[in-house]
Amino acid sequence: MNSRAQDKAAGAGFCALADWGTSNFRLWLVDGNGNVLGKRQSDEGLLACADGRFANVLESHLSALGAAPDLPVVIAGMAGARTGWREAPYVETPASLDALYRQAVSPAGINRPVFILPGVCQRTTGPFDVMRGEETQLAGAVETGLSNGVFCLPGTHSKWVLLTDGRIAAFRTVMTGELFDLVSKQSILKHSIDQNQPFTADDPGFLGGVMEALADGFSLTAHLFSIRAAGLLGGDATSAAARLSGMLIGAEITGMKSFMPHNATVHLIGSSRLTALYGKALEIAGARSAVLDGDELVRKGLFAAAKALFLNSEKLK
Amino acid sequence: MNSRAQDKAAGAGFCALADWGTSNFRLWLVDGNGNVLGKRQSDEGLLACADGRFANVLESHLSALGAAPDLPVVIAGMAGARTGWREAPYVETPASLDALYRQAVSPAGINRPVFILPGVCQRTTGPFDVMRGEETQLAGAVETGLSNGVFCLPGTHSKWVLLTDGRIAAFRTVMTGELFDLVSKQSILKHSIDQNQPFTADDPGFLGGVMEALADGFSLTAHLFSIRAAGLLGGDATSAAARLSGMLIGAEITGMKSFMPHNATVHLIGSSRLTALYGKALEIAGARSAVLDGDELVRKGLFAAAKALFLNSEKLK
Repeated sequence: MNSRAQDKAAGAGFCALADWGTSNFRLWLVDGNGNVLGKRQSDEGLLACADGRFANVLESHLSALGAAPDLPVVIAGMAGARTGWREAPYVETPASLDALYRQAVSPAGINRPVFILPGVCQRTTGPFDVMRGEETQLAGAVETGLSNGVFCLPGTHSKWVLLTDGRIAAFRTVMTGELFDLVSKQSILKHSIDQNQPFTADDPGFLGGVMEALADGFSLTAHLFSIRAAGLLGGDATSAAARLSGMLIGAEITGMKSFMPHNATVHLIGSSRLTALYGKALEIAGARSAVLDGDELVRKGLFAAAKALFLNSEKLK
Repeated sequence: MNSRAQDKAAGAGFCALADWGTSNFRLWLVDGNGNVLGKRQSDEGLLACADGRFANVLESHLSALGAAPDLPVVIAGMAGARTGWREAPYVETPASLDALYRQAVSPAGINRPVFILPGVCQRTTGPFDVMRGEETQLAGAVETGLSNGVFCLPGTHSKWVLLTDGRIAAFRTVMTGELFDLVSKQSILKHSIDQNQPFTADDPGFLGGVMEALADGFSLTAHLFSIRAAGLLGGDATSAAARLSGMLIGAEITGMKSFMPHNATVHLIGSSRLTALYGKALEIAGARSAVLDGDELVRKGLFAAAKALFLNSEKLK
């Protein structure tokens, strides 16, 4: 540790870590071992800052945590998008996750060291694809010793990632969450779907939808309408929302078969609700799964970059 | 011909035929041979008549054609839906198309013989499904001698129908058109899709999308996002709208493989634009197609029902 880093670790923190997504902003003040000294969270994501408020938002939250004026900050996520604070160009697959910090960029208009980590893009290892933020969670997984495996991060745009020797070998974005929203709220199926009807991973409608989607010959566009028709014909008392969710998640798992070698454990990173649904669907598909803590992983990934930037590199000098 | 029918045929027409859909109303005045004596068309579909204007709309168009006050009318389509003029309960698959007239219903509140033909539903020959209107086009196909074959009626909700010995053996609704609209206009892909960019069946984007969807391992939800990523990465100069359309139509054809025995000709019924796109996609998939005139078919189907109702049955007495 150089003297500067030691000062931070002894005083009001070693550095700050931020996960700055499209809709959410999360900030942690950590000590030199990565222990959390303070935390902030708000809905000031990319969309709320697109008018150039990035520096102000960051400073206000740092100030609320009592961070020193020169405390360095490492940021992952959409703040590095073209429409964000400053573009951090994508690292291309196969992408080495312990080297994300090497392509970090520093935005202008702020009087402290700030580094935005790049996202990852895919041009040759599969269909064109991009991610921003998830790669830092995976860097965190590598920190915990998971350098190889299959990862699924369910959400509006689920990400599936193949990690090989600490690198993202290939990945895929699946629009499951967004399609669920569009189809359930805006297609003709909305007439058969009760938006307010909650369901769990054990709902017969969900289980049925997963099994339909896993069956040979399933085609999403050719099966969706049966949810509406079942409503009209009164032949299906199970939850239409649950069945739609099961169909879409089942279709996602079928579509990502090539990422799941025999006996692989799929590492799930996401909300407790989504990981429960995906865990059940994977079980039906005959795959094992294990849930990881996404909050912890993104912090570990950010902290690994911070250590590399602030302890081992010349960037701060 | 009984005397009543002869009067009609000799006077201002034998009967009137209406195709009354969700958004459109079409009416033909025909003679005893089915020849068209007059035609009306408007946007007074189900949605415009849901407040109970059905009788008024029908009478105003009949009056514009100079139809006699007791001229009988046969109607197909959404006018027979639960939310229509009067519900004409579905005939269940396998559904005999030359007997649609047997389950026709007559609405109240109008002083002339009016018959609404039923739709068709599927409970046991495949996933739950329903149609209203398309069955009458297929009845028209049977009239032209096409009693066996595969039919595809592309649209907002495409219908695929297996016709066996003049009966609908099984059918499927595929939400291709609606998904194209939702995904291109309201999902994240809208940022990469120029709504106003026209494309044809020969557009490289369309051909590429079809080929992607026909390839082994294709999964719609796992491939859609690559359209957005291609836009972000600047790696695809072809039309994103065309590629999306190709992907969705290709996925539809893959999903309906079970309806296409080896060497089958798919009979396409729809707009010239859609039948061109589907014809090209089917060609790429190695299937033959032939285009039929949907207007003519629905008229033939309605006229067959009219002859059965007004010449051979006791219903008018």
